[in-house]
Amino acid sequence: MKKRIGIIGLGIVGEATLKTLIKYRSLIKKRTSVEIEIAQVCDKNKRKKEIADKFGLSFSSNPFSIIEDPQIDILVELIGGLTPAYEYITAAIKKGKSVVTANKALLAQYGEEIFSLAEKMKVNIGFEASVCGAIPLIRSIKQGLVGCEVKKLYGILNGTTNYILYKMHTENLEFNQALKEAQEKGFAERNPSLDIEGIDTLHKLCILSYLCFGIWPKQEDIYTQGIKGISYLDILYTEELSYRIKLLAIAKKNQKKLSLRVAPTLIRKNHPLSQVSSNFNAVWLDTYPAGELLFYGKGAGGFPTSSAVISDLAGVEQEKGFFLQKKEKIEIEKISNLKTRYYIRFMAQDLPGVLAKISKILASFKISIASVTQKERRKGKIVPIVMLTHEAEEKNLREAIARIDKLDVIKPPTQVIHIEDV
Amino acid sequence: MKKRIGIIGLGIVGEATLKTLIKYRSLIKKRTSVEIEIAQVCDKNKRKKEIADKFGLSFSSNPFSIIEDPQIDILVELIGGLTPAYEYITAAIKKGKSVVTANKALLAQYGEEIFSLAEKMKVNIGFEASVCGAIPLIRSIKQGLVGCEVKKLYGILNGTTNYILYKMHTENLEFNQALKEAQEKGFAERNPSLDIEGIDTLHKLCILSYLCFGIWPKQEDIYTQGIKGISYLDILYTEELSYRIKLLAIAKKNQKKLSLRVAPTLIRKNHPLSQVSSNFNAVWLDTYPAGELLFYGKGAGGFPTSSAVISDLAGVEQEKGFFLQKKEKIEIEKISNLKTRYYIRFMAQDLPGVLAKISKILASFKISIASVTQKERRKGKIVPIVMLTHEAEEKNLREAIARIDKLDVIKPPTQVIHIEDV
Repeated sequence: MKKRIGIIGLGIVGEATLKTLIKYRSLIKKRTSVEIEIAQVCDKNKRKKEIADKFGLSFSSNPFSIIEDPQIDILVELIGGLTPAYEYITAAIKKGKSVVTANKALLAQYGEEIFSLAEKMKVNIGFEASVCGAIPLIRSIKQGLVGCEVKKLYGILNGTTNYILYKMHTENLEFNQALKEAQEKGFAERNPSLDIEGIDTLHKLCILSYLCFGIWPKQEDIYTQGIKGISYLDILYTEELSYRIKLLAIAKKNQKKLSLRVAPTLIRKNHPLSQVSSNFNAVWLDTYPAGELLFYGKGAGGFPTSSAVISDLAGVEQEKGFFLQKKEKIEIEKISNLKTRYYIRFMAQDLPGVLAKISKILASFKISIASVTQKERRKGKIVPIVMLTHEAEEKNLREAIARIDKLDVIKPPTQVIHIEDV
Repeated sequence: MKKRIGIIGLGIVGEATLKTLIKYRSLIKKRTSVEIEIAQVCDKNKRKKEIADKFGLSFSSNPFSIIEDPQIDILVELIGGLTPAYEYITAAIKKGKSVVTANKALLAQYGEEIFSLAEKMKVNIGFEASVCGAIPLIRSIKQGLVGCEVKKLYGILNGTTNYILYKMHTENLEFNQALKEAQEKGFAERNPSLDIEGIDTLHKLCILSYLCFGIWPKQEDIYTQGIKGISYLDILYTEELSYRIKLLAIAKKNQKKLSLRVAPTLIRKNHPLSQVSSNFNAVWLDTYPAGELLFYGKGAGGFPTSSAVISDLAGVEQEKGFFLQKKEKIEIEKISNLKTRYYIRFMAQDLPGVLAKISKILASFKISIASVTQKERRKGKIVPIVMLTHEAEEKNLREAIARIDKLDVIKPPTQVIHIEDV
C-alpha cells in the first residue's frame, strides 16, 4: 500500500519526522508493506526550503498546495497552535484527507468538531504525538484497552514541569532557579507559561478524557493549577513525610460523574510515578479488567515525537473507524466537591496558642488533622508549620484556609497541596 | 463489522474472556463499530458446558466443530501447551481463519511456521495475550514503534518469579519459603518449574525477538537460568550494594549480532525495573528515535489477560498484514562471549591469604575486582565474601570460578550473577 503525505511545518518535530521517515522508510515498508511517499513539505518560512532541498523534496510555502493536491492522502500538521492549524486541518478533512497531528492545544479546543467532521468525511485523525510524545499511549488506550474501562488516570504529561520539580528535589533548588536551568537545557521555553501554569497538561487531559471516557470536556470546567507556587520548603517537607510533589493530570470516574483536574499533588515516594525523573512523562491507569498499568517514556523532543507521528502515518488509514466512541453523557464534578487529603504549610508566628487557633478553625470546617510538623523553633518569628489532613472537602478546606489566613499570627498565603493515594 | 468467533479452552483465561466479552460487547461496538459474536465455545471437559449454558452459548467438546465452521471468522485458542494447540491453530489458519492466542510456548516453538502459514493464507495472528498479559505491549511494538529500532530490551516477563524475588526481598524469606507463599496465593503452580527455571520467560523472549528484531531464535540458542539458585544471602548483599535481583529477559542488538539471555540479574536499586513489585511485569526498551520506554502492568490472571485477548478480537482483522517483518539475518551471540560485570559470592574459610588466592586466579583470567565485602568474621569458619567485578568475559569468568571452586579454602558452588547497567 502506498501513501502519499504532505507535511506542514518544518520546526523541530517536522524536521525530525522527515529525517526519521527517510532513514526508516524501507524498514517501515518491510514491516507493514506500507510505503510512505513524502509528496511535499511546507513551511511559511521560505528559508526552510533548504531542508527540503537536502532531501530532494518538493517544497512550498503555501499549505494549500498540499491541502488541495488530490494525490496526497494524508496531511501531517506540525505547526502547532490554534490558528491557522484549525483552518488547514478542517480544509484537509473536507478534501477527504486523513490528518496526522501533534497539536494538543487544537484538539483540546476543537477536538469534538474535528473528530465529528472526520467521521462524516470517513477519514481518520492520527494524534499519537499529541500526548506523551514517544509513548504509544493513544494506541494503547484506543486499541489495547478497547475492552476495558478506565477508572482512574494519573498522568505526568508535561516534561518541562517534571524536570523543574525533579531538579528542585534533587538539587535543592528554588522554583526560579530550576526554571532557569530548564530553560538553559532547552527543556523549557523562554515564555514557559503554557507549561508551568499547567495549560499544556490540561490540553492533554482533555484528549485523554475523550479517549478514556468518550467526552470532550471544556477546558474552563477543569480545575487547573500550575507549579509556580511550589517552594523548596514544600519539596523538603513532603520528602520528609515520604511523599513527592508531581504535577498531575487526574481523572476519576464514578457512576455518572467524572472528576478531572490538573494540580501539583503529593504522591507516595515509593509509587512508580514518584520515580519519574528528569523530563520524562508517565501515565498510570487503573482499569477493569486489565488492572493497573504504567506507561513511561519521553514526552517531547523532535526525534522521540517523530516516532509517534510515523506510527500514525503507518496506521492511520487501516485504523479508520476503529475508534468512534460516541459522546457519553457524563457530568464533570465541581472542584469544590472534591474530597481528598491535604498537605498544608502555614507560615506562622512561633508563639504559644497558634496551633490551637489553627486547629479550632479547621475543626469548625470538619477538617481533621493527621499529622503536624513544626521543625524550626524561633520564638516570635515566622516558621513553617506543616499539616497533613484526613479526607476533607475542598470547599470547606478553602474556606477554612481563608479564615486562617486572616489570623494575625499567620503570614499568608498558606500553601495547600492535594494528596493522592494512587 | 460483525465478527463471529469460536473459543477453544474454558480455563481461567477462557472463562474470564467470555465474561468480559459479554459485559463489554456493546462498549466495544460503540468504540470500534466491531460487533463480536460468540458463535461457539469448546472445551474437552464436557462439564464446562455449564459455563456456556449460563450465557446461552453453543457448546462443543470437539474443537473441529469450530475449526470447520465456515461461518466462524476467528479461532480463539486458550488451551495452552504445544499439543494439540498446534494442530488446532494450523488447521484453522488453513481454513482461512484468523487466530487469537495466548500461547507463548507454542509461538516460541512454532512461531515462524505459524506466521508464514498465516501470511500465505492471508489471515492474521493476534498474540497480545502471549506476553505480559494485560500490558498492550505487542501492539505498542508492532504499531507504536513501527518506525523505531529497538536497541536493548530488558523484561520482567514472569509474575511468579518476580513475586518470589519480591517476597524474598521484602519479607526476608529464603527461596523455598517464598515459593511456598506464592503457591498458597495462587501466583505459582504446583509444578512451578516452567516459571522458576526461566522457561516461561524464555518463551516470551522468543516472541519479543520476532517483534523487535524480526528473528525467531531457537530456544536452545538462548542462555536460560532460573532463580532457584538465588539465596537470601544474595538478596541481602545486593540490597546493601544498592542493587536488586530480578529475573530478566535481555536482548541487545549491535551491528549484526543479537545477544539474548534469561537470567537473574542485578540492576540498580533506583531503576524503575527494580521497583516492579509483587507479580507485576514490566518491559524497558531502549529505542531509536523514541528513546527509553517502560511498560508496566499485570502479566497474568484471567481478567487482566482477557483484556489482551479482546483487543486482538477487535483488531486482528483490520491489522491484517500490518506486521510482515521479514526474517532478518542476525547471528545470536554465544553466551561465552558475553561481556558484563559480575556479582560473585564465595563461601570461603575465614583465614589469612584466602582473598589473595582468589584474587590471583581472577587476575590470571583478566578479571578485575571493583569491590569486596566480607562482613562476617569467624576465624577458620566458612563466611561469605562478595565481590563486584569490572567488565569481564563470561568464558573467562566461568573458568576462573571453576578453578577457585577447587581451592580447599572454598566451599563450592560459588554464586555468580550478572550485573546490568540498564
